[in-house]
Amino acid sequence: MDTQLPAINSPADLKALPLEKLPDLAEKIRQTLINTLSQTGGHLGPNLGVVELSIALHRVFDTPKDRFVFDVAHQGYVHKMLTGRWDRIHTIRQHDGLNGFLLRTESEHDCYGAGHAGTALSAALGMATGRDLAGGDEHVVCVAGDAAFTCGPVFEAMNNVAAHTKRLIVVLNDNEWSIDRNVGAIAKYFNSIATHPAYANLHQKAGKLLEFVLGEDARRIAKKVEDHAKNILLPQSQTPSNRSSLFDEFGIRYYGPIDGHNIPLLIQTFEFLKTQDEPVILHIITEKGRGYTPALNDPGKFHGLGKYTVETGETPTSDKPTYSQVFARSVTDFAKADEKIVAITGAMPGGTGLSVFKKEIPERYYDVGIAEEHAALFACGLATRGLKPFLTIYSTFMQRAFDMIVHDMAIQNLPVRLCMDRGGLSGDDGPTHHGLFDIAYLRGIPGIVHMQPRNEDEFVDMLWTMACYESGPIAIRYPRGNGPGVTPKDKPVRLEIGKAEVIADGSDVALIGLGDMFPVAEAAKKELEAKGLSVALINPRWIKPLDMDCIASFARKVKVVCTLEDHVLRNGFGAGVIEQLSDAGIHTPVVRIGWPDQFIEHGTPSVLRKKHGLSVENTVAKVLNALGQA
Amino acid sequence: MDTQLPAINSPADLKALPLEKLPDLAEKIRQTLINTLSQTGGHLGPNLGVVELSIALHRVFDTPKDRFVFDVAHQGYVHKMLTGRWDRIHTIRQHDGLNGFLLRTESEHDCYGAGHAGTALSAALGMATGRDLAGGDEHVVCVAGDAAFTCGPVFEAMNNVAAHTKRLIVVLNDNEWSIDRNVGAIAKYFNSIATHPAYANLHQKAGKLLEFVLGEDARRIAKKVEDHAKNILLPQSQTPSNRSSLFDEFGIRYYGPIDGHNIPLLIQTFEFLKTQDEPVILHIITEKGRGYTPALNDPGKFHGLGKYTVETGETPTSDKPTYSQVFARSVTDFAKADEKIVAITGAMPGGTGLSVFKKEIPERYYDVGIAEEHAALFACGLATRGLKPFLTIYSTFMQRAFDMIVHDMAIQNLPVRLCMDRGGLSGDDGPTHHGLFDIAYLRGIPGIVHMQPRNEDEFVDMLWTMACYESGPIAIRYPRGNGPGVTPKDKPVRLEIGKAEVIADGSDVALIGLGDMFPVAEAAKKELEAKGLSVALINPRWIKPLDMDCIASFARKVKVVCTLEDHVLRNGFGAGVIEQLSDAGIHTPVVRIGWPDQFIEHGTPSVLRKKHGLSVENTVAKVLNALGQA
Repeated sequence: MDTQLPAINSPADLKALPLEKLPDLAEKIRQTLINTLSQTGGHLGPNLGVVELSIALHRVFDTPKDRFVFDVAHQGYVHKMLTGRWDRIHTIRQHDGLNGFLLRTESEHDCYGAGHAGTALSAALGMATGRDLAGGDEHVVCVAGDAAFTCGPVFEAMNNVAAHTKRLIVVLNDNEWSIDRNVGAIAKYFNSIATHPAYANLHQKAGKLLEFVLGEDARRIAKKVEDHAKNILLPQSQTPSNRSSLFDEFGIRYYGPIDGHNIPLLIQTFEFLKTQDEPVILHIITEKGRGYTPALNDPGKFHGLGKYTVETGETPTSDKPTYSQVFARSVTDFAKADEKIVAITGAMPGGTGLSVFKKEIPERYYDVGIAEEHAALFACGLATRGLKPFLTIYSTFMQRAFDMIVHDMAIQNLPVRLCMDRGGLSGDDGPTHHGLFDIAYLRGIPGIVHMQPRNEDEFVDMLWTMACYESGPIAIRYPRGNGPGVTPKDKPVRLEIGKAEVIADGSDVALIGLGDMFPVAEAAKKELEAKGLSVALINPRWIKPLDMDCIASFARKVKVVCTLEDHVLRNGFGAGVIEQLSDAGIHTPVVRIGWPDQFIEHGTPSVLRKKHGLSVENTVAKVLNALGQA
Repeated sequence: MDTQLPAINSPADLKALPLEKLPDLAEKIRQTLINTLSQTGGHLGPNLGVVELSIALHRVFDTPKDRFVFDVAHQGYVHKMLTGRWDRIHTIRQHDGLNGFLLRTESEHDCYGAGHAGTALSAALGMATGRDLAGGDEHVVCVAGDAAFTCGPVFEAMNNVAAHTKRLIVVLNDNEWSIDRNVGAIAKYFNSIATHPAYANLHQKAGKLLEFVLGEDARRIAKKVEDHAKNILLPQSQTPSNRSSLFDEFGIRYYGPIDGHNIPLLIQTFEFLKTQDEPVILHIITEKGRGYTPALNDPGKFHGLGKYTVETGETPTSDKPTYSQVFARSVTDFAKADEKIVAITGAMPGGTGLSVFKKEIPERYYDVGIAEEHAALFACGLATRGLKPFLTIYSTFMQRAFDMIVHDMAIQNLPVRLCMDRGGLSGDDGPTHHGLFDIAYLRGIPGIVHMQPRNEDEFVDMLWTMACYESGPIAIRYPRGNGPGVTPKDKPVRLEIGKAEVIADGSDVALIGLGDMFPVAEAAKKELEAKGLSVALINPRWIKPLDMDCIASFARKVKVVCTLEDHVLRNGFGAGVIEQLSDAGIHTPVVRIGWPDQFIEHGTPSVLRKKHGLSVENTVAKVLNALGQA
C-alpha cells in the first residue's frame, strides 16, 4: 500500500489519481474506517463492502450534477470521505459532527437522505423523471442492497421505472445481508444467480478484457466495453432458466453479476452503462465487512455497532441487560409455556433481541425481511387464527405499518402485540431513527392500548399483560439501551389496564413521568421538595387509556401538573393529559417536558436531553415558573 | 334462464344445486346486483366480474372452515349473497344495512375485512401459517385483482410465501383494471400472458376435457383434472419466453390463464388446486362489468358509483362541481401556467378528478398504481429536482405513506403538496374509508403545514397558496362530494399561512369551525344569538400552524371556546387548540365537536353526524352547558 497518496478533498482529487493507485486508496479508506469507527462506532460492515463501488462511482460520475441515491444511506461513509468530508469522518455520529446517514443539509453531494430502507429507487426515479421533463443530461444512480428488495416500495417503484424514464442506473449491491442474513424468495433468487457456474467463467473473461483495455483513455474504453459488455456480463441466455428475467419483466435491463471489489471492472462497466438509453440494473457481489476479519466473521454484529478493539473486534460488555434483551428473554419464556405465542421481526433478530427466540423456538419465529407492512398484516392473519403475535419493530420503522395498524388491526380489533423498541430518542442515529412520534400516530386510533414501563421489572409485567390480553391491539414503547437496572421478579404480574401507579402523594405539584422520563421526574421531585414544596409523583404506565381517575384527582388538588415524556410534545402524552383534563372541566395549569416541534439531531441522549430541556433542571425551573403564575 | 331456482340461504344450498343450474344462478345474481345497486349504489363492476368465481369457490370449498380472503373486499357482494345475506343485499351501504366491504363482525363467512388494497395475500399467509402451526387442514384462498400487484405489500408477502407454508391458493383475478385501467410493468406482464395465442388453444382443450368429465363425481373429476391439468393450464414451457417465471421465482406455482366466467372449469381447477402441496397461483381472466353493457362500456364509472338507471346506466347529474372537480380544474389550470407543477395519483384519476389533468397535460401526469409509498417517494425525488408535485391521495390511503411523510418529506423539508381528498367522513363507504385521522397523524410531525377550506372559493385560494409555497411539505384536507357551492373568484389569492379568518366578533362564545364543519358553526351562532349571547365566529383555515394570536385573543375574552371538526377528537384539531391554549397559560373552557374515539360505521353523513353529535343541536347544547359551568 502506498501511504504517500495525496489527500482526497473532493471527487476531482479522486479523478486526478492514476488508475493503478485506486486499490491503494481503497486500502487507505478501509484502514481509516476500521480505526476511526473503533472509536466512534458506526456502520462498519456495510461501508467496508462499498469502498471500491464508491470509488468507481465517483471516478465515473460527477456529483453534485450527477445524483447518487443510496438506499438506507448507512453505507455513505466512503462517499462522505470522497466528497470533502474525509477530515471530519472521525466526528461521525458525534453531536455536531457528521451524521451517520446522508443529509441534504450536510453536503451538496448528498442529493437524498435516508435512514429507512427501500426508498432510494422511487426517489431516484423521481429525480430521473424530473431531469427528463427539464431536458437535463445528468445521470441518476440508485445504489441499493439486496435487502432493499424485500421492501414493498422497491417493487412499487420497479413497476413504474420503465414507464417513466429511459435513463436510470440501479446498482444492486448484493452481500446477502440486511442487518441479519436475508430471508425469502428474492434472496434465494439473487443467490441462484451469484452461485451459477457462469459467474466464475465471466470473471476470467473480464480479466482478459481488462488486460486488453487497461490504460486506454476513457472514451475508447467505453466503446470497447460496450462491444464486449454482453460477453463480460452474464448474458440472459446463459443464466439458469432465464433467471434474470425478474428484472426484465419490469422493463429494467439486467447486467451482472460482477465482482463489486474490482475497481477497473466497475469503472468500465459504469462507463458502458452511462451510455445506455434504457433503465439498467447492475448486480454486483460484495463482501460485507471486506478487509476486516472480525467483521467478516460476524457480519450481523459489525453491521452497526459502538466502540470496539481494532485488533480483536471485541466490544465492551455490559452486565446489565438492555430493554431489547429483557424483552426477548421474557417473550421467549412466555412462548415456551404458551404455544400460541409467535414472534415476528422485520430483519432485526439482533437489534430486537429476538435471536434468542429464533434459537430456542425456531418454529414460531418469523423474520419477514424489511417488510413492516407485510409483517403487520401477517400478524393480523395469525391473530384471526387464534395465535398471539408479538410484532417487534422499532418505533420509527413501525411508521411503515401505520395504515395496517388502523385498517387491519384496529378496525378489526385483532389482538396483535405491537412491541416498539427504540421508543424515544435513538441518540447517535439521529432524526431518521428517533422513535419520537408513536404516541402522536397511535393515540388518535380507536381501541389501541398503549403503555410504557419505567423499569425492567415493570416492563416484564407489561409484556406479560400483553400476552394475556386478547381484546384487541395493544402496544408498548420502550427505550433503546439499558434501563435503570431493576431485576425483574421471578414471576410477572398482570397489570390492570388503565391503572396508574402512585408513588407519592403531594399537594403543590403532581409530576407524571412516563417511562424513561420517570427517573427525571423522581429527581425533580427531590429538588422541588428541597424548596419546601409538597410533590406527588405518578408513574402513568398507560398512555391510552389514561388513568383519568388518578390524574384528575391529583389535578384537582395540586397547583401545577407536570408531565414528562421521551416523545414530541405535539400530540404527545402530555397533550393527551391536557385534552382529557379539559374534557373533565379541570383547568389546573399543566407544564410539559418533552421534545420540541422540530426534528432532533444526532448525539448522545444526555447531551440532547440537556440541550432541549428534558432535564431535571428545566423541569424544576418550569414548574417553579408555573407556580409563580398559578 | 331458470327463474324457479331455489333460494340460496347458505353455501349448502349452493352445493345442493345441480351443476347445470349454476349458470342460471349466475344470471340471477347478476340481475339482482344490477337492479339492486341501481338503487343503493355500490361496486357494481367488480362484483359482476366475480359472479362465477364466487359460485365456484363456494361450490368447492367450505366456509367458514375454509377461509376466503378477498383483496380490497369490494368484490364481496356475491360472496355475501351466497352466505346467508341474499335477502339483505338491498341494504348494502345503507346505515344499519350490510357494509359495502367484508366485515368480520358481519358474518362468520367473512374471515377478514378490507377496504384498502394489497392486504389479502399477507393476511392469508398468516392464516395458512397459523393453520400449519396448529396442524389444521382447512384451505386458505386469497382472491386478489391484478391491480393489487401494483401494491408493495403484495410483493413483501410473495417474498415470504414459500418460506412459510406449503398450502396456499392465490387467485389472480385479472381484469386489467384497478379503479382506472392498470399501469406499469406488472400490468403489461399479465397482459402478455392473457393475449398469448396459447391462451386461445387451451380453451379448446379445456372444452374437450369438460365434455369428458362433466357429470362424474367430484373425486373422480379431481383425479382426472389432475391428470390433465398441465394440459389445460398454460404450461410454462409454452409461455412466451417463460413469462410465468415471475411467480415461480417467488416459489409460487403458476397456473393459467383460464376463463374466469367458466363455472365448470373453475370448479374443476379448484378441485385440482386444493390437492396441491405447494403454494399455487391461478390466473383467471374476467370482465369487469360482465353482463351489463353500460358497465362494460365504462368500467371506470361502474367500478363504484351511486344510483343509476338500469336501462341506460345513466347517473344523476349535478350542476355543482365536487371538491375533487374544483381541485383538478384548479391544479390543471395552475400547471398550464407553471411547468414545474406535476400531478401524481395512485390509480385514482377518476376519484381525485385528475383525469382532467391527464387529458390536458399528459406529460406531467403520473398514475403510479395503488402504490402510495412509492407515490410519496417519487414526489420527493421530483421535489429535489425543483418540481412542484401535487400528490393527490385520499386521506385514508395517505396512511400508507405515513413513514415517507415523516422520513423523506418532513425530515428533508421537501415541498411536496399533500392533497387529501375525502378528508373527513366518507359516508356510505364506512370505517375503512373515512378520512378521520389525518390531523392526528400529521400534527405531531415537525414542519408540515396543514389546512382545510370552508368553501370552494377558499379551496382554490389554498391550492394556489400551496402552488406558491416552496419552504417544505404542505397538506390540505377537503371533504368528499360537494361544498356549499361558492363559485371561486376569477383569480385566486395567496393566503397568509397561519392567519385565521375572523367572521364575527363576540364576547360570550367563540366558535371555531374547521372546513366542512364551518356551516355547522355558522348555524349554531344564529341559535346561540337567538338566546341573547354574543358569539364570535372564526374560520381557522390552518390546522398547523394554528393562528394562536387570533385564537388566544378570543379565548381570553369569551367564556367558552367551541371547536368543530370533521375528524376524531383525540389528537384532532380541537385537541391542538386546547394544547396550545394551555401552553399559553389560557384556561378558558373548550367544548369540542367532532367524532368520538370509536370507528364510525357506514351511512349518510347527515345520519351519522346527527347520531354522533356533529350537529347544530348538539353544538348549541354543549356550549350552553359549558356556559352554565363557566
